[in-house]
Amino acid sequence: MPANRAVVYRGPGHVEVESVEYPTFELKDGPGVNPANVGRQLPHAAILKVVATNICGSDQHMVRGRTTAPEGLALGHEITGEVVETGRDVEFVKAGDLVSVPFNIACGRCRNCKEGKTGVCLNVNPDRPGSAYGYVDMGGWVGGQAEYALVPYADWNLLTFPDRDRAMAKILDLAMLADIFPTGFHGCVTAGVQPGTSVYIAGAGPVGLAAATSAFLLGASVVIVADLQQDRLAQARSFGCETIDVAQGDPAEQIAQVLGEPEVDCAVDAVGFEARGHGADAQTERPATVLNTVMNVTRAGGAVGIPGLYVTGDPGAGDEAAKIGSLSIRLGLGWAKSLSFTTGQCPVMKYNRYLMEAILHDRTPIARNVNATVIPLDRAPEGYTEFDRGAARKYVIDPHGMLGSASV
Amino acid sequence: MPANRAVVYRGPGHVEVESVEYPTFELKDGPGVNPANVGRQLPHAAILKVVATNICGSDQHMVRGRTTAPEGLALGHEITGEVVETGRDVEFVKAGDLVSVPFNIACGRCRNCKEGKTGVCLNVNPDRPGSAYGYVDMGGWVGGQAEYALVPYADWNLLTFPDRDRAMAKILDLAMLADIFPTGFHGCVTAGVQPGTSVYIAGAGPVGLAAATSAFLLGASVVIVADLQQDRLAQARSFGCETIDVAQGDPAEQIAQVLGEPEVDCAVDAVGFEARGHGADAQTERPATVLNTVMNVTRAGGAVGIPGLYVTGDPGAGDEAAKIGSLSIRLGLGWAKSLSFTTGQCPVMKYNRYLMEAILHDRTPIARNVNATVIPLDRAPEGYTEFDRGAARKYVIDPHGMLGSASV
Amino acid sequence: MPANRAVVYRGPGHVEVESVEYPTFELKDGPGVNPANVGRQLPHAAILKVVATNICGSDQHMVRGRTTAPEGLALGHEITGEVVETGRDVEFVKAGDLVSVPFNIACGRCRNCKEGKTGVCLNVNPDRPGSAYGYVDMGGWVGGQAEYALVPYADWNLLTFPDRDRAMAKILDLAMLADIFPTGFHGCVTAGVQPGTSVYIAGAGPVGLAAATSAFLLGASVVIVADLQQDRLAQARSFGCETIDVAQGDPAEQIAQVLGEPEVDCAVDAVGFEARGHGADAQTERPATVLNTVMNVTRAGGAVGIPGLYVTGDPGAGDEAAKIGSLSIRLGLGWAKSLSFTTGQCPVMKYNRYLMEAILHDRTPIARNVNATVIPLDRAPEGYTEFDRGAARKYVIDPHGMLGSASV
Amino acid sequence: MPANRAVVYRGPGHVEVESVEYPTFELKDGPGVNPANVGRQLPHAAILKVVATNICGSDQHMVRGRTTAPEGLALGHEITGEVVETGRDVEFVKAGDLVSVPFNIACGRCRNCKEGKTGVCLNVNPDRPGSAYGYVDMGGWVGGQAEYALVPYADWNLLTFPDRDRAMAKILDLAMLADIFPTGFHGCVTAGVQPGTSVYIAGAGPVGLAAATSAFLLGASVVIVADLQQDRLAQARSFGCETIDVAQGDPAEQIAQVLGEPEVDCAVDAVGFEARGHGADAQTERPATVLNTVMNVTRAGGAVGIPGLYVTGDPGAGDEAAKIGSLSIRLGLGWAKSLSFTTGQCPVMKYNRYLMEAILHDRTPIARNVNATVIPLDRAPEGYTEFDRGAARKYVIDPHGMLGSASV
Repeated sequence: MPANRAVVYRGPGHVEVESVEYPTFELKDGPGVNPANVGRQLPHAAILKVVATNICGSDQHMVRGRTTAPEGLALGHEITGEVVETGRDVEFVKAGDLVSVPFNIACGRCRNCKEGKTGVCLNVNPDRPGSAYGYVDMGGWVGGQAEYALVPYADWNLLTFPDRDRAMAKILDLAMLADIFPTGFHGCVTAGVQPGTSVYIAGAGPVGLAAATSAFLLGASVVIVADLQQDRLAQARSFGCETIDVAQGDPAEQIAQVLGEPEVDCAVDAVGFEARGHGADAQTERPATVLNTVMNVTRAGGAVGIPGLYVTGDPGAGDEAAKIGSLSIRLGLGWAKSLSFTTGQCPVMKYNRYLMEAILHDRTPIARNVNATVIPLDRAPEGYTEFDRGAARKYVIDPHGMLGSASV
Repeated sequence: MPANRAVVYRGPGHVEVESVEYPTFELKDGPGVNPANVGRQLPHAAILKVVATNICGSDQHMVRGRTTAPEGLALGHEITGEVVETGRDVEFVKAGDLVSVPFNIACGRCRNCKEGKTGVCLNVNPDRPGSAYGYVDMGGWVGGQAEYALVPYADWNLLTFPDRDRAMAKILDLAMLADIFPTGFHGCVTAGVQPGTSVYIAGAGPVGLAAATSAFLLGASVVIVADLQQDRLAQARSFGCETIDVAQGDPAEQIAQVLGEPEVDCAVDAVGFEARGHGADAQTERPATVLNTVMNVTRAGGAVGIPGLYVTGDPGAGDEAAKIGSLSIRLGLGWAKSLSFTTGQCPVMKYNRYLMEAILHDRTPIARNVNATVIPLDRAPEGYTEFDRGAARKYVIDPHGMLGSASV
Repeated sequence: MPANRAVVYRGPGHVEVESVEYPTFELKDGPGVNPANVGRQLPHAAILKVVATNICGSDQHMVRGRTTAPEGLALGHEITGEVVETGRDVEFVKAGDLVSVPFNIACGRCRNCKEGKTGVCLNVNPDRPGSAYGYVDMGGWVGGQAEYALVPYADWNLLTFPDRDRAMAKILDLAMLADIFPTGFHGCVTAGVQPGTSVYIAGAGPVGLAAATSAFLLGASVVIVADLQQDRLAQARSFGCETIDVAQGDPAEQIAQVLGEPEVDCAVDAVGFEARGHGADAQTERPATVLNTVMNVTRAGGAVGIPGLYVTGDPGAGDEAAKIGSLSIRLGLGWAKSLSFTTGQCPVMKYNRYLMEAILHDRTPIARNVNATVIPLDRAPEGYTEFDRGAARKYVIDPHGMLGSASV
Repeated sequence: MPANRAVVYRGPGHVEVESVEYPTFELKDGPGVNPANVGRQLPHAAILKVVATNICGSDQHMVRGRTTAPEGLALGHEITGEVVETGRDVEFVKAGDLVSVPFNIACGRCRNCKEGKTGVCLNVNPDRPGSAYGYVDMGGWVGGQAEYALVPYADWNLLTFPDRDRAMAKILDLAMLADIFPTGFHGCVTAGVQPGTSVYIAGAGPVGLAAATSAFLLGASVVIVADLQQDRLAQARSFGCETIDVAQGDPAEQIAQVLGEPEVDCAVDAVGFEARGHGADAQTERPATVLNTVMNVTRAGGAVGIPGLYVTGDPGAGDEAAKIGSLSIRLGLGWAKSLSFTTGQCPVMKYNRYLMEAILHDRTPIARNVNATVIPLDRAPEGYTEFDRGAARKYVIDPHGMLGSASV
């Protein structure tokens, strides 16, 4: 059995690369493993040699200490890999397959999975519907920022790339299929983006940039990205987005300068609960700011996609209401405009095959647009730190040095 | 030109039946008429002899003094009538036609109307998208709780009943097509109600009962209606609903008693911003209570329809945030469950023809279910008072004594 | 290992009840088994004690000798049963569970299954997408008109009834979930049936009657069923359908007598390629008759659902074109009316859970409407004969005498 | 009143530019005008100075003598123009507006228009639902290949370009909004084209090329266009399409060479009833060839969009069945694959505003892709002739010399 190393949470602001156990076909006890999951047999799983595994903004929520994530938790839910071993019940996935792993863990057998709602699978997290690798309160599935990782229900969860060489030539793009590309795409789809629409995307982090990339792939006529970070806004402009610096004031006015009217057809909240205010409040946390803004700037009859994370509890929030996840929202504004809203984890499986085809046929430079940046496993802690400081980069960890020749 | 009389708002808690001008093909100045609409020519309008015109819960918002409605405003947006005269540009509607009037006023010529979003028409209300008859801040179109009423863009807005005699035999049911039946139906459709689903409907007022009726028409397996008023809950039980008295505590627990689990497939908020709390808070206004409850009781992956009114400003609210329509909502709870939400006025035209067919073919006893109760025009003030007290009735004003033989 | 008996095809017009092998967790060679499937290991399967198994109109296609079905083929794809044993990879289904089996066999792991298209699963039939139990050219899965039957991919395929006693009280209704109820429902859904629509259903066999039942459950205002058999038309009338005897002439004229116009909103072809002509041609096979009629009677902009079977080859057809499944269709008629068409096997899993809930909550008397008629296994041959003669019955085989007290 | 000239049908193979009457707000008698439409008052109409008006493949059906079009019929239904006068009932469109005219004539007041089905409007063609300018059996509305043209129900039908200068800079692209761009787009949408899909488009005429352009705008990964004409195939390749010469044999085999498998996700029939055979039959008319091919090459569970015209009667057809529009179709093949089909005129209004935005924001070079070629009105006859010979061009008539500086 090979050795294994992983990125492990060691307290607020602190991650380390440590030796961890090589995956086995049983879910063993460990930091954050739900007792009801301890000892769970996984003959349906596959063990992957991890080819690429990305750092995600939602990992940062844990590392900043905004959650109850336990020390010792192995992190990482954006996994691309090569199958090295399959459980006895795996029928269609084979050793040697190069695969993308949806960050949602799903059983492929419950009511929700049968309806395509793999983000709220009923059988993988004893606490509530929905799960993910290496994430607090998600059942205890081991994270994938590691050399080797285990994927349960492998025949259901894994997306196999059709040709290894073609895939390796696009591997940085394909690495975005595990989470941010489908997540940004889902934000756009649920916001009603279609050819000819104007789109406002709040947030120019990787999910926001993935949403902008998706908006263009969906045929949007104008894509406006808003953020506070200049580098991220420059990154958005680099592939054709209009940009808005929300520190400069009301987004509606700035939209009017771009479009001639202060409203867009569709809006995507790619920020979530750690939002800051606009204008003079730009340095202060204002968890409902983005929600209120998107209601303001979306035209009557429009829709809002909310892939940005909102939480049920936030111990580190600035006020009592926000600590229990309660935000002061101008819902009446949305109601007067007959808006609709879609929240929640993206059900990755709904989109990843099609986005893979778009990548393989050169239709969408997602890795370039999110500024995918390869780092070795040992440099993961620096990647966390730089990303937290707002680097306009998507860090892709390369545990086995297989991405050496990969470029965006 | 005949005389005309209408129900007029005369200050908080006070409406009167007064003589008013007979409709003309011009929108004249008057209480609440937007200056930009004064003098608007209406050659596309039809004048109706009002056969039935209902009192709506949203009228009560004005009459309770919760809005900035001006004194002298003629009320009423639920109109069924007979065409007595048409403007020179009306081509397909004819004098003598018996018609239903969608409460949304729509031009039939703007982008939103062309997309079927008649609840947010761009050309009828100078203030913002969307309009209605006899309603504050909706452009100043004269209300229809009157003997005669005017309907602009008549070829677009009016739904003609195919046979006068068949229609008069069902006139109390058909009177519900102007607003509450489509509104409740829209709540159910946007909540994803389909055959076999379980549905939670917050509120057993007329819209809630119409939503419950719609849920059955859509094939729901179980319809659970929640309210504080015993008479309204009894009315819901009279046509097969399960009921929950929210004063008795947490709806989730009571749902579990009905279904064996604390969640439903679909939820409809038929209450809106004037909600009271649950359990011990049942006598206190808690504008976000229903929203938070429906997020709690809807299963992961489900949807919520919100036909209940939320406002952009509420001068009479109990706290500063609510005065600007800002409510403390546990959005993180909805996010964790991947819920979607649809708000806003029902676009009546999308549904009214089909619901008319269902009524004419005896598929849905809407008037019976909402306890339609005919009163003469002169008794409208008492109707307002009794309805405000929570009477389990839907009051239908009969300005010309044409509903004499109508029964549910 | 218990004994087992099954209904076996023995040549045109001839079926027998014979001893057959008890199911094992391997697909063994036998009549009609695709060589590529021989020896397939099935650790994901469950063995059922068959509680109810119905005779289907599509079985008749084989028994009439219209296909290349081999002698010795065990028939039957409408299976309801009790799990008696599960393979080692089955995780959620348990022995003792009472279950419905979708007639589509699906792997739950391929692209199509992940999209909910279980009628065209890619992994179960080596010849082409899609499979079924006991059916010619479908891969060789053993039929379920037997005492015991095997269901592969049991966690994916089986629908477990939530409560055994409640289920046994409705078992004849629930037996229709395996095929005809979802199939009729799918026909209606794809035809756009919704509350208030008028629906034309060609064919009053069990699928047609199930479609009519579905139309009512979906809220249709008028359901018109057409057939040549008087008993079947009487059966349709018994639950509120309007009926048309196509031997009496043009359906359009008869529709006009019912509706006042010769068109409906939605049409369902529940007949398929063994159609006969209308009017004077009523005794002659006219495989395109129903398709041409539904195009004629569906209003412009409407939709047609085609659950009725059309085949790629029909050796017994009356002309050369029909022998290769080529029919003379007035597509220009449909084009001029902007019609859309949906064909193919119903993906049962998309609907069966919801229809189960509708049954368990007494919303839809499907067994009564299709005249479900229980017969012991030994009488299956007579059931085939009577059904072929046009009996207005849906025959439900009761292999273990468990349906004794069941009544519609 | 200015003079007016138009392209007039003068018998098979023969069109001329002739003086015709200047439009008036009444539909007068003339060649092909339905008697029920004679004298119809049109106060809702606008008179346009025609800026661009294109020759369409469906005009060719008439000019080839394949229809019952009367001599003297003024042709043309692809109109872009400047409003010069409006009827008294026109409220929102103003003289000076630059506008696109959907080829479907629609009233904006009937049930179908209210549902967005403007291709089957009930009030403009006395013969049947749906109409178009200058077309046989469509009610008798005068064609727009002229200097001046009349558009009824102008507030409903016209799409106003938001800025005259920006519009004139893109006028050749915008000219495609009247018909072929939305028509090709509709074909793709109804075929299920979305990001990442592979698409087969039968036909590389202007509609086929517009469908290919649409497929890219919708994010397709691979677009395969099939035709017999080398120039048209070269035109398709010029903007990134893969191409298939159907004269070289079975399209499925050629698709396999492109994709590695013989099937696509989505197919569009942009040919219609005047199809020729494949392979050795390539010079022979085979009206069902394309339909049978698209069923063969579309993957199971896929969809087919059929914007190509199929007719209810075709007096010039090669066999008796085709003369009444009856084609020998292998529907069983489609059924076995669970395909769905959408036919009919594109409801242009559903798409034109969004496609206009895509054009104005430089997202889709439609004029370049279809090889838009400007000709003066007097050269229209040559345009017809060259187009009939298979020129890989879309001819745009420039009646007033306003397109002089326009280039693709």
